Amino acid sequence: MEYPSKLIEDAVNEVSKLPGIGKKTALRLVLHLLKRDEEQTESLANALKAVRSQTKYCQKCHNLSDHDLCSICASRKRDESLICVVEDTRDVLAIENTAQYKGLYHVLGGIISPVEGVGPSDLQIESLLTRLRSPEGEQVKEIILAISPTMEGDTTAFYLQKKLRPFNLRISTIARGVPIGGDLEYADEVTLGRSILSRIAYD
Amino acid sequence: MEYPSKLIEDAVNEVSKLPGIGKKTALRLVLHLLKRDEEQTESLANALKAVRSQTKYCQKCHNLSDHDLCSICASRKRDESLICVVEDTRDVLAIENTAQYKGLYHVLGGIISPVEGVGPSDLQIESLLTRLRSPEGEQVKEIILAISPTMEGDTTAFYLQKKLRPFNLRISTIARGVPIGGDLEYADEVTLGRSILSRIAYD
Repeated sequence: MEYPSKLIEDAVNEVSKLPGIGKKTALRLVLHLLKRDEEQTESLANALKAVRSQTKYCQKCHNLSDHDLCSICASRKRDESLICVVEDTRDVLAIENTAQYKGLYHVLGGIISPVEGVGPSDLQIESLLTRLRSPEGEQVKEIILAISPTMEGDTTAFYLQKKLRPFNLRISTIARGVPIGGDLEYADEVTLGRSILSRIAYD
Repeated sequence: MEYPSKLIEDAVNEVSKLPGIGKKTALRLVLHLLKRDEEQTESLANALKAVRSQTKYCQKCHNLSDHDLCSICASRKRDESLICVVEDTRDVLAIENTAQYKGLYHVLGGIISPVEGVGPSDLQIESLLTRLRSPEGEQVKEIILAISPTMEGDTTAFYLQKKLRPFNLRISTIARGVPIGGDLEYADEVTLGRSILSRIAYD
């Protein structure tokens, strides 16, 4: 496509590097900014620069944070006997939104994926073990592996189980089964099969 | 939603002001930038600032441009007897991509929309008339109204026809009909009805 100006072409190219945004959407976004006040573009650009250059990672759980310790690790209201291991920050947000979990987290920063060249050493696995060996780690009673039930996720969970076995903790994973509100007939066979195998007795 | 940090919240709020981008997509985009090199965010932010602050409008046709005259108005290869009136720059790009039109353009910068408070004086209509009255205007033989066939578009086209009548030019509009490659049975009645009324005789 021929753009009306070099500046627009540059901006469209930069915006279309974002995931899920193609050239057409990028052009629509750039033309939108051109119609709005210059301050809106300024504050968008400044917010992006600030978040990229100033965001820190929690020294304990590696979640994104404004400070050295994230608000969850710094809180005194959380149950320090539970650590929930997740792939990334979005999973922390998703679990926090359920308001069902009051323990701590550990953010791996990815999952083991030989295809994408991500091995165990690229993830925050060693720091989880260090955390369990530290004085703080003595309070931990259970590790919950809340990792997506995909092939890579299962590989990561299997690797973690092996590494965590020596610590003599309870290791659990989030339940897999039919989603609440979902229709049985539309559930895939694997999920439905697992949900029968891991059936829950009424008390 | 509770964000892990104030910086992320600010960035998500700014990004989600863009059209078609909600909070969830904005968060995904911001977390994506955090995983990439800082230079990528820098060049994105700089390109957005540059395009907003330095983009000019062509003094003749009001298309977006790097210079005082856009590349189309400055070109000597265009047919100066034709002016195609469009709503915005994206329409110019769309028509240029067809490679079927070699005349000039006039970009209105919007369409008449009482609901959104856009009246004729907010658009580049007066400047089109000034353009036709100027010495350059004497070469113009036809005005093509290439405005979307919506209610607002039709209103704008009707207003323009009235204003253009005194100039004694040919005034035309782009053909409305069944899209090429489209199935007759799926065309809406209005379009199909119009395409029968404005049928074209085989030569």
